[in-house]
Amino acid sequence: MAPGRGRGHASGRARATFSPTTPVVKGIGDDCAVLRIAPRPGRAADTLVTTDFTLEGIHFRRDWHSAESVGHRCLARGLSDIAAMGGEPVAAFLSLALPRDLTQSWVGRFARSLIGLAEKYGVTLAGGDTAESPGGILADIIVVGSVPRGKAVLRSGARPGDRIYVSGELGGSAAAVAQMRARPRRKLKPGEYARHFFPEPRVELGRILREKGLASAMIDTSDGLSTDLAHICEESGVGAEVSAELVPRACVGKPAREVELELALHGGEDYELLFTAPRGKRISPRIAGVPITMIGHITRHRKIFLMNRNGVGDELEARGWEHFRR
Amino acid sequence: MAPGRGRGHASGRARATFSPTTPVVKGIGDDCAVLRIAPRPGRAADTLVTTDFTLEGIHFRRDWHSAESVGHRCLARGLSDIAAMGGEPVAAFLSLALPRDLTQSWVGRFARSLIGLAEKYGVTLAGGDTAESPGGILADIIVVGSVPRGKAVLRSGARPGDRIYVSGELGGSAAAVAQMRARPRRKLKPGEYARHFFPEPRVELGRILREKGLASAMIDTSDGLSTDLAHICEESGVGAEVSAELVPRACVGKPAREVELELALHGGEDYELLFTAPRGKRISPRIAGVPITMIGHITRHRKIFLMNRNGVGDELEARGWEHFRR
Repeated sequence: MAPGRGRGHASGRARATFSPTTPVVKGIGDDCAVLRIAPRPGRAADTLVTTDFTLEGIHFRRDWHSAESVGHRCLARGLSDIAAMGGEPVAAFLSLALPRDLTQSWVGRFARSLIGLAEKYGVTLAGGDTAESPGGILADIIVVGSVPRGKAVLRSGARPGDRIYVSGELGGSAAAVAQMRARPRRKLKPGEYARHFFPEPRVELGRILREKGLASAMIDTSDGLSTDLAHICEESGVGAEVSAELVPRACVGKPAREVELELALHGGEDYELLFTAPRGKRISPRIAGVPITMIGHITRHRKIFLMNRNGVGDELEARGWEHFRR
Repeated sequence: MAPGRGRGHASGRARATFSPTTPVVKGIGDDCAVLRIAPRPGRAADTLVTTDFTLEGIHFRRDWHSAESVGHRCLARGLSDIAAMGGEPVAAFLSLALPRDLTQSWVGRFARSLIGLAEKYGVTLAGGDTAESPGGILADIIVVGSVPRGKAVLRSGARPGDRIYVSGELGGSAAAVAQMRARPRRKLKPGEYARHFFPEPRVELGRILREKGLASAMIDTSDGLSTDLAHICEESGVGAEVSAELVPRACVGKPAREVELELALHGGEDYELLFTAPRGKRISPRIAGVPITMIGHITRHRKIFLMNRNGVGDELEARGWEHFRR
């Protein structure tokens, strides 16, 4: 169902070549939303769909995360998945179950933050579902996007010899989690750990990499570099070598300090883009304002090695992201 | 994210004129699913999206509903929304959060039932999300469908003079709930209350009504006749008169008995189709094997009246559907 009234109006869309026109024919207020995913005449589109839970106690804690942060991260997760395909987000759907005792203020701040991020990316909140929660705040975000037909950048396109790149810096989100775990009562300043509390999805970067045909495979770093690179390698049937000293480590806190390598390798929820590009492609060190770092290359054998500065490697184990469950 | 592996294979699709071809380009195993919602060349499509929660303690109870029933009802809710637009379901996405102590057997039976229903309607399970639940089984089903461009049957198309029709029978699902509430320890036989435990979504009926241009407005009876008719009237800016004696009441239990009028008027989750059609349109008493009953007509004034056999009416209050919350 797509109940209720009101609607997140899209604005501020600053797009180049592939802007779908009036994509939401019917938003909230009917059994389904009706989307018209149609680029300019003569160009066919594929539709992208992603869904992501945001569950209290698993993905966030109300004592650690503000309502604004929860709303922002909820939608950012979905937008980041669209970015990782090189797509353009079109519409979002929010299924939201709330406990009876939750304040209206919390819900309002959550919704304003989520809708603010949606507007920034020209995404219409076009429906969803609401329910009473049997316990805790439960959200499921669905983002629908579009990409020119056959042009989605998959995880499966990496080939031996391709270079491996990552946007931004890694480990910043996990560093915030480590801090909060170590000192549960101290409130972190969101500005000092922005990549955790208000991650900016790399939509523009993903679109440019797809448009220019630069990326052979792509994923977002939601589970952590080691795990997400393993996904690319598995889907592509290849291996990889990553140089430890090349991995860009986040600077967090005040005074700002570089995070440990372990956090940059295994920490999740940075929502950067991890992609591969054929050796011959020139990748600019900054695209859409985001630094791009070459961290290694794809190999034929199916294992992933972390190389030290002497060129000696240890196998890099995929260590999945831990959630907030106590 | 669209994690994991495996995929619900579509089969048994018995379609007439608007079959999208190979709609799921990329299913589970990438950041997003990639759908190609394209009918035959020369025909443009709109995309339909619906999301529905199925939460333990709110939408079902584990002591009252089998895993098979929960899986079936979870997807049926979404398919019914697609049916209510006259659309064809293409792909489903399941976000599923499970408590640690849930048995593998429960999950297997839930999934097999859901996938079985998906296959029956030619729908591919193309992704979703999985998480640990902080409490209870939490599912969110997303169904994506398609409809020829501009042809979705909305709630807003009812006009004064239109006849009001409903498919099947009403109140059967609410009768099961009433029985379970009255005698919580007695297990109901699903076969005697099929509309509650294994509702068949009216996809074929909805498609035919749309193809033949018969329905001016349509909704599924998920909240109950009084509430769902109010939705149509509100969106269309009209009112209605319903004849109490014409409302088709479900027969449930053994020996089968007709439910009370109250249940047929206000009981939810029957997932029948409630639609309006211009007076001049001939509506067959049975379409796609489902009985169709004329129950009243649309009026200019904005209220809804329930008329007795003497033609005297009382205002029909919209009494929403109660969930299982104790």
